[in-house]
Amino acid sequence: MTDRIDRLRSRLEQPLLVTNPVNVVYLVGFESSNCALFVESERLRLYTDFRYIDAARSVEGVEVVQTKRNLIAELAETLSGRIGFEGVLPYALYEVLRDGGLDLVPTHGVVEGLRAVKDERELDALRRACAITDRVFERLTQVPFIGRIERDVAWDLAELFHEEGGETLAFESIVGSGPTGSRPHARAGDRVIEAGELVVIDTGTTIDGYASDSTRTFATGTLNGEAKEAYDVVRRAQQAALDGIRAGISGVDADALARAVIDGSDFGGAMGHGLGHGLGLDVHEAPRLSKESGDVLEPGNVVTVEPGVYLEGRFGIRIEDDVVVTQDGIENLTGFRKDLVQVG
Amino acid sequence: MTDRIDRLRSRLEQPLLVTNPVNVVYLVGFESSNCALFVESERLRLYTDFRYIDAARSVEGVEVVQTKRNLIAELAETLSGRIGFEGVLPYALYEVLRDGGLDLVPTHGVVEGLRAVKDERELDALRRACAITDRVFERLTQVPFIGRIERDVAWDLAELFHEEGGETLAFESIVGSGPTGSRPHARAGDRVIEAGELVVIDTGTTIDGYASDSTRTFATGTLNGEAKEAYDVVRRAQQAALDGIRAGISGVDADALARAVIDGSDFGGAMGHGLGHGLGLDVHEAPRLSKESGDVLEPGNVVTVEPGVYLEGRFGIRIEDDVVVTQDGIENLTGFRKDLVQVG
Repeated sequence: MTDRIDRLRSRLEQPLLVTNPVNVVYLVGFESSNCALFVESERLRLYTDFRYIDAARSVEGVEVVQTKRNLIAELAETLSGRIGFEGVLPYALYEVLRDGGLDLVPTHGVVEGLRAVKDERELDALRRACAITDRVFERLTQVPFIGRIERDVAWDLAELFHEEGGETLAFESIVGSGPTGSRPHARAGDRVIEAGELVVIDTGTTIDGYASDSTRTFATGTLNGEAKEAYDVVRRAQQAALDGIRAGISGVDADALARAVIDGSDFGGAMGHGLGHGLGLDVHEAPRLSKESGDVLEPGNVVTVEPGVYLEGRFGIRIEDDVVVTQDGIENLTGFRKDLVQVG
Repeated sequence: MTDRIDRLRSRLEQPLLVTNPVNVVYLVGFESSNCALFVESERLRLYTDFRYIDAARSVEGVEVVQTKRNLIAELAETLSGRIGFEGVLPYALYEVLRDGGLDLVPTHGVVEGLRAVKDERELDALRRACAITDRVFERLTQVPFIGRIERDVAWDLAELFHEEGGETLAFESIVGSGPTGSRPHARAGDRVIEAGELVVIDTGTTIDGYASDSTRTFATGTLNGEAKEAYDVVRRAQQAALDGIRAGISGVDADALARAVIDGSDFGGAMGHGLGHGLGLDVHEAPRLSKESGDVLEPGNVVTVEPGVYLEGRFGIRIEDDVVVTQDGIENLTGFRKDLVQVG
């Protein structure tokens, strides 16, 4: 991973104290809830406490320094001079560093900017995570839905991911049936799934720490005209985005590709969230595809494309694929079918 | 939960912007990855975005305000005057509020201080989570260990917790066999568990969002004298702490109760971490029991008591119970046996 450190160094105006644990994983492959990486032009120091020190010693190319549990307090005592720090650092820890007399320069998204463009090794992990997710969706269609509670279907997902070789769930699965589906981030709860309604399933797994994040909306029986129509609108909205996304498009314009389809339908205004987000070691990372995004897509970005329609208290529909942005378009990592699948 | 808001208000010198999502759960029972609670003496406002707005509207006693996705930016535009904020706020979001012209006062651990003392409803959830964990340990002793990889035993734990009624895993289970056990926070990996070694199992579940966190160390066959001796030392160290912890003792002194036993044995210096930590909606919260702690225990604190001995590259031993601090001593929520259990 030396090239990652080299690329980071080329972007730094002063030494950088990396405190986001996910950024440390990305830069040197070391995972700990209590660590920091101090990146200077000639030195690279990894700080962690006793609990992780044995693992830290197997990291190549770093000087390992064992600290007490209150790691930032120790850094405040031992470091000096002009130092960049990451904007994700909690304010209270910033205060500790500041009171140590350091000349602190806040930085924003420096490592996250590197992480947004995936290399082949990362793409391979994401492809595998998405392939497993496809197989889990396929097997999920054989599972009984009607008469069971959402939470039990979420457990089925956990079992299926385990059987198919996923490392961990990327996040707590969303199983939103009927009116619950109109809450885009509802957890799987105790509601009994009924016949003749829609069920939003948003789930994913990790491979080598890289997350998939995919959504399908299933039907438990025949649907009325409006729900079918809404499903068709969401599917067309997603296709418009998949057709239009390529390197060079802004996050705002990508979002607008799908939003225009929905806002031009009978369900105008019903897509309450953004079109998608970057995907990698975090389930939500750079870049963003939304009305508020300041990003422009680059080759190697991996993003979700997930338009939805939400009718409060009635139902929700979301279809979500994970795609790699390329020079000319996309590589879609999600292969599971997108017609309205009926489950029993 | 009105009394929690009342108690919080009595501690405030100015309005407080609560941005820690776990603190929002504690104060008003609302769970979201993107929310804030603005607590004034006469008003209580809950901010969240579209994805969670339907759920927010079912929260009693709050004014719900829908924001765009960039919630802090919107607060920076709409709030004014002198406002407290939580020290856990990322520095970059502090900058956004500051640039909005607010007169900002950092606060530290205000809501966390309330959370450290549990009420009966919280204790009931913790008792249930710990009882489930006891049953899972009991059943785990019937599971095959030898010849299987750590990761598969971790999956057994997930299944057992599901069957026993746990909501979710409180954290990714640690299964540290043989030399891996000497890394206190090793994940379950691909190492094959062998006969005649120690296996550290650190696991827990949640009930109503409250976490259990318990560790036992099992033996896969007969152990040599040193490992047996070390186990006995850790057990005596834990008992010394359980006997001595009560309201009024400092986190430093509680830690010393166990550390003195270990440091007085052949394994002096081998307990590299602190004795324990508070437990509740977070797996690690106030108060702390360690050499670095500034806390004094109060009735109603719930803490882990988890001494350990770690011999790098050879083995680790940890025994961890969850206890409620009372005026005169403790109520131990963890009931699973602590003699050295042999598994097959």
